[in-house]
Amino acid sequence: MTGFTADDFAARQARAAEAGAGAGLAGVLVTPGPDLLYLAGYTPPAATERLTMLVVSADRDPALVVPALERPDAERAPAVDRVSLVDWTDGADPYETAARLLAPSGRYAISDSAWAMHVLGLQRALPGSSYVSMSDGLPMLRAVKDAAELRRMAAAGEAADAAFYDVVKVRFARRREVEVAADLTDLLLRHGHSQVDFAIVGSGPNGANPHHEAGDRVMEEGDTVVLDFGGLVDGYGSDTTRTVHVGEPTEEEREVHELVLRAQEAGFEAVRPGIACQEIDRAARRVIDADGCGEYFIHRTGHGIGLTTHEPPYMVEGETHPLEPGMCFSIEPGIYLPGLFGVRIEDIVTVTENGGERLNTTPRDLHVVA
Amino acid sequence: MTGFTADDFAARQARAAEAGAGAGLAGVLVTPGPDLLYLAGYTPPAATERLTMLVVSADRDPALVVPALERPDAERAPAVDRVSLVDWTDGADPYETAARLLAPSGRYAISDSAWAMHVLGLQRALPGSSYVSMSDGLPMLRAVKDAAELRRMAAAGEAADAAFYDVVKVRFARRREVEVAADLTDLLLRHGHSQVDFAIVGSGPNGANPHHEAGDRVMEEGDTVVLDFGGLVDGYGSDTTRTVHVGEPTEEEREVHELVLRAQEAGFEAVRPGIACQEIDRAARRVIDADGCGEYFIHRTGHGIGLTTHEPPYMVEGETHPLEPGMCFSIEPGIYLPGLFGVRIEDIVTVTENGGERLNTTPRDLHVVA
Repeated sequence: MTGFTADDFAARQARAAEAGAGAGLAGVLVTPGPDLLYLAGYTPPAATERLTMLVVSADRDPALVVPALERPDAERAPAVDRVSLVDWTDGADPYETAARLLAPSGRYAISDSAWAMHVLGLQRALPGSSYVSMSDGLPMLRAVKDAAELRRMAAAGEAADAAFYDVVKVRFARRREVEVAADLTDLLLRHGHSQVDFAIVGSGPNGANPHHEAGDRVMEEGDTVVLDFGGLVDGYGSDTTRTVHVGEPTEEEREVHELVLRAQEAGFEAVRPGIACQEIDRAARRVIDADGCGEYFIHRTGHGIGLTTHEPPYMVEGETHPLEPGMCFSIEPGIYLPGLFGVRIEDIVTVTENGGERLNTTPRDLHVVA
Repeated sequence: MTGFTADDFAARQARAAEAGAGAGLAGVLVTPGPDLLYLAGYTPPAATERLTMLVVSADRDPALVVPALERPDAERAPAVDRVSLVDWTDGADPYETAARLLAPSGRYAISDSAWAMHVLGLQRALPGSSYVSMSDGLPMLRAVKDAAELRRMAAAGEAADAAFYDVVKVRFARRREVEVAADLTDLLLRHGHSQVDFAIVGSGPNGANPHHEAGDRVMEEGDTVVLDFGGLVDGYGSDTTRTVHVGEPTEEEREVHELVLRAQEAGFEAVRPGIACQEIDRAARRVIDADGCGEYFIHRTGHGIGLTTHEPPYMVEGETHPLEPGMCFSIEPGIYLPGLFGVRIEDIVTVTENGGERLNTTPRDLHVVA
């Protein structure tokens, strides 16, 4: 990931501190992973038992606690000009060091994937403090993308689209799913992905399991095939699904595909600032329910995407957080007919001032492959 | 990692439950990573926000909490015949599910790298329970290796030794450290490593920084070079250091090397069941101190090794845990002369009934390379 400056990170930190204060938090504690990449552009040489943690709060300047051994690495982080580095040496108690940066009875949100030993260490060092996971305390920390992030999200979508245009030219019939998955992975990398997180090829009955990846099943004429693929381009995520058919589809296959397409369209049309995330789920689900197929749509309609390929906001019943301009998420209804086949159609969408914009623009029809 | 059976895992779980009870714990909670690989032979498809956790306690049968989506993966784990699977579906609270397996006011040790959101979720679901990290509560969980593990540790040592015999045949003079590091990595893989965790080449003054990895420094006749390398063979770790010299060493270089060799030997001679880990550190350090070089030996003498290349027990002042037959750890004293050069010599040693046995048997003299 390139091109973000100390000012960009300082602005994000200020927004995080403000959002935290608004949520009744004394601050946010950020450990290695996407949160730290987002707020400081820093990934330590390895995630180990040694505490690395950024402390962002409204009432003091940001500070990054680092193992003394890794201070030279941290000094190269782009955010460092605007963050104080506080190091601790092997043998010292890093939680005592961190506790001096915290309010004795403060309530903090801490990165979901922070090590348990670290949150237990903070609880011990500062018994009056309390902690919630970032998912609980400040789930939308990274949800609204700024202009520089949106450019990267658009580039990731374009790279995934380019891979799709190429993959439908390869042969499917008489090849195993894993072979097409390998082609797809290769195409994603060629079109600019630095890493591929998934390249699902679910043919025939395998497509009816939304968690199938790719296996040894040999595809044949007559198979419906779900292709769900994504990864990172310059640090930001892509995630697209198209359902294709080997040879001409039957009437039933066309109808199921058409229904999913209408559901996906309904989800997209519902996108605008201010409506609750769950309304996107409801809009897509309503279409499938109305056709009597609700029992075959067995997952939420979408998930946020950014520095990771799955993150808040989730488009799911019960998520009442309102959409805001700059949020990016998937809309991916599906129908899964056990033992027969599955259909899923997924685009990444970003919320604009007036509605939504698709970051994937390949045709959503039931493409016929050879 | 291959060849462990449900019985092996059941025996390890029983030992863990017993050790936990002995340490005043109601049980141990094990999340994806080396602890779960050790106790259940299981690694989920990905470490995500979804809770996967093995509950091992003295007063009930072991249970593995898994996301319903991943139940088919968990069912293939070798330990599963002897463990109940308890699944939870998206939308349900996994901590409520887990809490039903725990004692309401129990004290549990939880894997160091468990996600903070999980330990916070358990604290919320079961407010009377309390948690310590595995490092604090049961640090020796994986320290004593059984016979099947010791065979793998021996194989890992042999593979590392084979790589060393080959790497001293490559040219060092007029090549960059990173080139020899690449040779060394390649040799480790060829000799059976599935992954290389480090291949340190520290020449001349770079060798005086124990955290140097390998850089662009071009080696020349007259350089002392520290080679520290290791990784995993069939799931178990290797870690060896030898110090070599490009061309004939000076008298001073020979003397420093000889001193480190005597310190390493003293550490090894001290190994026997029942003595405290810190005695290994003291034995090695005493030799270097007696020569007046104590200030140049700037790290602990060793660390445990097994499913990871760094784990308890640590051979360090203050670690009073007694050695037990089957423990495996490094003995790696060093002398670091800033701006000049460094010397380190490291073998993996396993504790036997009567003393210790080296798992690395390449010559420990100051080997001359070209």
